[in-house]
Amino acid sequence: MRKLWGGRFDGETDALILRLNNSLPFDRRLWRQDIEGSIAHATMLGATGILSPQEADQIVAGLQTLRADLEAGQVELPEDAEDVHAAVESLLRERIGPIAGKLHTARSRNDQVATDVRLYLRAECDALVAEIRQLQETLLDVAAQHFETVMPGYTHLQHAQPVVLAHHLLAYFWMLSRDVERLSACRGRVNRLPLGAAALAGTGFPIDREHVARQLQFDMLLENSLDAVSDRDFIAEFLACAAILMMHLSRLAEEIVLWNSPEFGFVILDDSVTTGSSIMPQKKNPDVAELVRGKTGRVYGNLTAILTVLKGLPLAYNKDLQEDKEPLFDTVDTLHLVLPALRKTLASARFQVERMREATAGDFSTATDLADYLVRQGMTFREAHEVVGRIVRHCIAHHLTLETLDVPTLQALCPTLADRASEVQAILSVQASVQSRQVRGGTAPQSVRVQWQVARDSLAGT
Amino acid sequence: MRKLWGGRFDGETDALILRLNNSLPFDRRLWRQDIEGSIAHATMLGATGILSPQEADQIVAGLQTLRADLEAGQVELPEDAEDVHAAVESLLRERIGPIAGKLHTARSRNDQVATDVRLYLRAECDALVAEIRQLQETLLDVAAQHFETVMPGYTHLQHAQPVVLAHHLLAYFWMLSRDVERLSACRGRVNRLPLGAAALAGTGFPIDREHVARQLQFDMLLENSLDAVSDRDFIAEFLACAAILMMHLSRLAEEIVLWNSPEFGFVILDDSVTTGSSIMPQKKNPDVAELVRGKTGRVYGNLTAILTVLKGLPLAYNKDLQEDKEPLFDTVDTLHLVLPALRKTLASARFQVERMREATAGDFSTATDLADYLVRQGMTFREAHEVVGRIVRHCIAHHLTLETLDVPTLQALCPTLADRASEVQAILSVQASVQSRQVRGGTAPQSVRVQWQVARDSLAGT
Amino acid sequence: MRKLWGGRFDGETDALILRLNNSLPFDRRLWRQDIEGSIAHATMLGATGILSPQEADQIVAGLQTLRADLEAGQVELPEDAEDVHAAVESLLRERIGPIAGKLHTARSRNDQVATDVRLYLRAECDALVAEIRQLQETLLDVAAQHFETVMPGYTHLQHAQPVVLAHHLLAYFWMLSRDVERLSACRGRVNRLPLGAAALAGTGFPIDREHVARQLQFDMLLENSLDAVSDRDFIAEFLACAAILMMHLSRLAEEIVLWNSPEFGFVILDDSVTTGSSIMPQKKNPDVAELVRGKTGRVYGNLTAILTVLKGLPLAYNKDLQEDKEPLFDTVDTLHLVLPALRKTLASARFQVERMREATAGDFSTATDLADYLVRQGMTFREAHEVVGRIVRHCIAHHLTLETLDVPTLQALCPTLADRASEVQAILSVQASVQSRQVRGGTAPQSVRVQWQVARDSLAGT
Amino acid sequence: MRKLWGGRFDGETDALILRLNNSLPFDRRLWRQDIEGSIAHATMLGATGILSPQEADQIVAGLQTLRADLEAGQVELPEDAEDVHAAVESLLRERIGPIAGKLHTARSRNDQVATDVRLYLRAECDALVAEIRQLQETLLDVAAQHFETVMPGYTHLQHAQPVVLAHHLLAYFWMLSRDVERLSACRGRVNRLPLGAAALAGTGFPIDREHVARQLQFDMLLENSLDAVSDRDFIAEFLACAAILMMHLSRLAEEIVLWNSPEFGFVILDDSVTTGSSIMPQKKNPDVAELVRGKTGRVYGNLTAILTVLKGLPLAYNKDLQEDKEPLFDTVDTLHLVLPALRKTLASARFQVERMREATAGDFSTATDLADYLVRQGMTFREAHEVVGRIVRHCIAHHLTLETLDVPTLQALCPTLADRASEVQAILSVQASVQSRQVRGGTAPQSVRVQWQVARDSLAGT
Repeated sequence: MRKLWGGRFDGETDALILRLNNSLPFDRRLWRQDIEGSIAHATMLGATGILSPQEADQIVAGLQTLRADLEAGQVELPEDAEDVHAAVESLLRERIGPIAGKLHTARSRNDQVATDVRLYLRAECDALVAEIRQLQETLLDVAAQHFETVMPGYTHLQHAQPVVLAHHLLAYFWMLSRDVERLSACRGRVNRLPLGAAALAGTGFPIDREHVARQLQFDMLLENSLDAVSDRDFIAEFLACAAILMMHLSRLAEEIVLWNSPEFGFVILDDSVTTGSSIMPQKKNPDVAELVRGKTGRVYGNLTAILTVLKGLPLAYNKDLQEDKEPLFDTVDTLHLVLPALRKTLASARFQVERMREATAGDFSTATDLADYLVRQGMTFREAHEVVGRIVRHCIAHHLTLETLDVPTLQALCPTLADRASEVQAILSVQASVQSRQVRGGTAPQSVRVQWQVARDSLAGT
Repeated sequence: MRKLWGGRFDGETDALILRLNNSLPFDRRLWRQDIEGSIAHATMLGATGILSPQEADQIVAGLQTLRADLEAGQVELPEDAEDVHAAVESLLRERIGPIAGKLHTARSRNDQVATDVRLYLRAECDALVAEIRQLQETLLDVAAQHFETVMPGYTHLQHAQPVVLAHHLLAYFWMLSRDVERLSACRGRVNRLPLGAAALAGTGFPIDREHVARQLQFDMLLENSLDAVSDRDFIAEFLACAAILMMHLSRLAEEIVLWNSPEFGFVILDDSVTTGSSIMPQKKNPDVAELVRGKTGRVYGNLTAILTVLKGLPLAYNKDLQEDKEPLFDTVDTLHLVLPALRKTLASARFQVERMREATAGDFSTATDLADYLVRQGMTFREAHEVVGRIVRHCIAHHLTLETLDVPTLQALCPTLADRASEVQAILSVQASVQSRQVRGGTAPQSVRVQWQVARDSLAGT
Repeated sequence: MRKLWGGRFDGETDALILRLNNSLPFDRRLWRQDIEGSIAHATMLGATGILSPQEADQIVAGLQTLRADLEAGQVELPEDAEDVHAAVESLLRERIGPIAGKLHTARSRNDQVATDVRLYLRAECDALVAEIRQLQETLLDVAAQHFETVMPGYTHLQHAQPVVLAHHLLAYFWMLSRDVERLSACRGRVNRLPLGAAALAGTGFPIDREHVARQLQFDMLLENSLDAVSDRDFIAEFLACAAILMMHLSRLAEEIVLWNSPEFGFVILDDSVTTGSSIMPQKKNPDVAELVRGKTGRVYGNLTAILTVLKGLPLAYNKDLQEDKEPLFDTVDTLHLVLPALRKTLASARFQVERMREATAGDFSTATDLADYLVRQGMTFREAHEVVGRIVRHCIAHHLTLETLDVPTLQALCPTLADRASEVQAILSVQASVQSRQVRGGTAPQSVRVQWQVARDSLAGT
Repeated sequence: MRKLWGGRFDGETDALILRLNNSLPFDRRLWRQDIEGSIAHATMLGATGILSPQEADQIVAGLQTLRADLEAGQVELPEDAEDVHAAVESLLRERIGPIAGKLHTARSRNDQVATDVRLYLRAECDALVAEIRQLQETLLDVAAQHFETVMPGYTHLQHAQPVVLAHHLLAYFWMLSRDVERLSACRGRVNRLPLGAAALAGTGFPIDREHVARQLQFDMLLENSLDAVSDRDFIAEFLACAAILMMHLSRLAEEIVLWNSPEFGFVILDDSVTTGSSIMPQKKNPDVAELVRGKTGRVYGNLTAILTVLKGLPLAYNKDLQEDKEPLFDTVDTLHLVLPALRKTLASARFQVERMREATAGDFSTATDLADYLVRQGMTFREAHEVVGRIVRHCIAHHLTLETLDVPTLQALCPTLADRASEVQAILSVQASVQSRQVRGGTAPQSVRVQWQVARDSLAGT
């Protein structure tokens, strides 16, 4: 493979250095974007008269057939090329001869690669948003079956107050909505055209960057050529969005692992999304959830990697920037795996409604309701909290539950309550507790139905 | 200090555990937000009849005078309080008596602290955006003096093509513009109201969350109470924005360090932004730039910290979330230091125009122009690149520069050029090279002036 | 406060820049080390004749009384000093006059600060090792009560095979042992003397570095002055050790949180190490465990910070290195909090032995034992695994447990087993399963007792 | 491919989940270790009578021929296997029939994979140490040519004091020595045997772990089976060592990039380790150094990844641990690229001795020597520093250098010096400055020669 830069050099490049240097093993996936960008560039070179119409046509036609052949698997990128740009240009030269050398007029690999990566990432932002939405759809579908499914709501992994499962699942819906917001905003910053920046200073040829931007559907031009070839903040931003998304998914994954444990028993996962053990015949492991949780590390690591690469780099292009692609690609691939895997896991999960309900029995999770009741009777919340705290302590010491407190005990612990024992009983039921939280965003089934509809509409509207 | 949760407990908390647990040493800075949120909450409790108008008024008035006294330094937060919420409530109780205990009706520290942090961060986003804009103003001011200042443009820290200093500085303007975009978008996601989520499930009191949102100028409500108290994606997003901003600043800082070295000599920093050595009397060190570069580590670390904290946490609130504040506060404080410090460094820097110009002499940085010239004569770019590469190699071997190539040598190396020696001479001048790059975003002074105006307008428009 | 480097400067340093630059707010904690190092340095200057004996004595005496007065709180570091070195020297000058200026002969702040930090960290390595050992002692104490406490052993948070609690706790003992190994090795690399490197190049004064090393009990000298003042790998290594230690602690913390949940119910934490809720009177939260888990983020972040700071720094000292201290100090402080907190949590925890035992009932965790039994009858393990897998599937489908399989069912599922039903019953008991794993490192109580003794001895021996 | 755990499952695993789950694409590289470990395991099973001698022999022989055939490329791992363990066992079964199923007696994939990874990493530690030593050899070789090559020593990238190039290069020698220390210590913790831990609890078969350890040359046994299968601190430690090593390399890389810039001009890199530009024919880029610096990000990211994965994982094995391998492998591969690449870059570099010497002229870097001279005349260092600072300021203001100060000027600035003008001249020479720093570890050529010999011996001795 002929190098694109041989003229100035006497010596041969060392084989190890070539291996260190060459990016084809990972940037090969950009061939579609590379050709797409080159077609737009060549078309513009023709339109502006920098190339003759014939030259431009010949190059564009060459690129188009090359694309078709690559797509069809009838030709392959040469393994010995330095990078995807060299590989594509070399294949083009095989087809249309030395005129292929005119394609690189008024451009450099520096602006070319930045354009390729932006085209790639723009499409991936869209694809990932679509996959997140599918996961959100699934959350809505499952939630719709569980508006009345009562379960313990946890803080500190302690039973805090009862909630309904739909409410719990919708919490993830909203996290994912913000992830979609972030990815969409990121896409806006990705979709800006670097081409025309050439090596770093712009070009002396009278190119038309707006022409290229229109062809490639970029929203706007990058206004500074040094910035265009040397910044990678859009990749760092994408990886930060991905890290936050994975953080959210890791939390859902953790809950699936917990709920699937024998101790919780809140969910049974489908055989299709679990695996077994090579030694313990009884095992059925929540692998998907564990791998989602584990792969969070990989994505965090990719974010650390790009931030480290960029730290303290002077302008403009430095070879360090070649290290931007693998963390990006790995993150995209990871998300394409975990999003549908988690969706399938949720969609096929069997939630154990009875077990969840039983778990709320005798767990003191309606203590706040009792305190609130005292407040409505005129006590300050701080007093009420103190009184109920004493009642709970008494119950634990005597192996009682709130539901089974008898009147004499109530009398002893809080005289004002003794007179209203039946009201108190009603308040202490998990059902009543849940029903009472009708505030917007609260866990009362009717509130959750409203919330569900808002969620549903937001998904339709976006 | 009375605990807010003593009733249920027999034993005393261990002193070390208290120290581990208590957040007042760092969350004390939220006292303004805590009072502001409590005033809105109490006002709403009055408006909805949950408290009587008198009760609400009394609480609000107590909070207002407390705020004034704290502001005036006439009262201090009690050191032994568990957190800022307990500290404020305790001071309030000293003033208005047990009725202070009614303030916590229909709310929990879980939604309270989330509200406080969001109020804090909303204001800080605005303050930081203002500071970034000031830095951008300074970049514009300095750039305006250097539309014609030619300097080497670098790739791989090698001279690549000449550029003008204004162009180089404006590259940072645009990076910072995107940082402003990101922070503004983040502010939008910060500015959503969690209050009303109570502990995790919402409240049974008929509160009016829209009322609170209006008072506190939140853009919208968080629609799910579990999400409201347990997610911290807005902090992670802010820290990611900050990390990317610091990455940009670290690049500028690196360039200042380089340019200030004797070898580059492109800038002389003002005494007011440099320090000396305790041993070497001649030293004048670019401390600001070095510290900006170094503090990038701190901000990256803070992002790592929050992402690690959140990974795999089940819903809803967990005490781990207490670890969200210090990385946030430290990052905000760091940015408030480095942004103005860098601004002052730039504003007072004396750029060494002559030294920059001299640096472009004989550096082969117009070789691309020569290749482009050959392309205009009909050669393919690949051929032209090869020819010019050979010429450069010849010059280096014979200690020549492109500018001093004589006709016989040109004749030998590229016969077509020999006939056009004077044209070639013109092309090889640094001035001509810069002038030629008139593409939008390119380095020709007239293009940079246009770019500068676009930048100027964008700042005014925002 | 007079600067140590004013002579060469015309202008005043900007106030903000001073604030950015000054390190006294955090390096003040090094005053003991700074004085200790200075005493050694001055003593050596006297011994080598660089200072007269009288001068050296006067300086050493001044430093000693200053140390005593600082220790006693009778004098304070001046707030306006640039750093701890300037602060100490300024206090010394107040006492002994201009001769204090001779202390800085043949040294620079560059080697001085490196020495101070190494003295500090050496002591902290020892202190932290002592605290880890105390935690290990506690693990041994608790384990000693639970050689026979059977509980589910988990993989994938599924019941895998029964284990004894002592065995589970000892797993953490060994993790911590490796942490001690790492910290001890790190200490060895910390304990090397940089003093004498001066600014970067060594000094022309005939100092005796071995003399200083002996006084300060350093193991060896750093052999290269540039290396001595510019590398901070020993801090990065310490932070990596700390991150791995916190990782281990976070795992133990996670288990405490899980075991303390109502669903597991394996442990009841003492009131002294838990806190309550401001809204939910019944809550008793495992705050220590959660904070240990959460503070892992902080320590990981500190490691990221220092690695980022050091990346790509040219030799020798750069101001970026000032950013080495806060991550270090914060990590040390964090470990001093979490190690004893976790120890107290464990020491006061009441393990619910019955609950653990019950959790192993009917959980199929002896399925491997059945497969192993078949192997002993001559089946290959793969066949046996298959057969037992089918038996488990049958049990689940028919709501049976392995313990309650009757002979006809066994007959149907695995004829060879039917003949040996009573042997099979024996094998399927949790007790028998645990007893059988007598391999070194296995969970049989007698093996665990041996393991415990090895652990005990290793602690004594170190 | 038959799964190793099918018996208990009804449904088929989803194809996507399989792809998520399967590790063969990356753990295939462990086949040698997997076979080596299996041979040792089978041999021990025979020696202990768990298998008959014939069975053991048959399995061992099968594994040996399989290894030979895989080595020779005559057989390939089946692509559809779940992981390398399944792949190897399946190939074995093809060769020796169902008896292959006996190999997995008394072991689980959990202890098997931990053993494989430790065998792999043990060898890689050795290989990497060997490569670091080669780089150290190169540093020694290059240094040996530059004991007298004077260059500016930098702090804050300002000229601080002159040093010799050998001294500067040896700084990296010592950093790398500590990296070797760390890797060697890490190897010691890697080289502990997990096999025999089985799934998590040990095994009921009477295996002999010492026998296996001896065969596989492990230093010791892991004493706790839960720890053995669930901790990965040895990988985190290795990645931390690698991160610190890359940090060191990134600093050397940064210096190569700087020194190779036209402004510094301290080094000319060989054509064999540089590449050119696709647009700028004159460019010769220090790609190796830039990629080394950039790949630091990747290794830091890998460390972040593993620490994140392990945070908060309960015992024992969790599927998240599958994510331990790729960051490890990627780091090993990266080091195998960058270490020799940097070595070749250094070995072939032409240091520009004259340019370095010229750079020290008139740079005030001997100002400390002048101050030290005044100290020797009896001034305190603080006074001397002040006086010399004034002299430097005078020189800068009047465009003078220290070397060219005339007697009247000296007289005016420091009367005591005027009498000793010739002595002062001698002191101010760069040569004299370097010569004077004869302290151990200092930059005087004779000291550096001693240092070089110590370094040389340390390399031989290790």
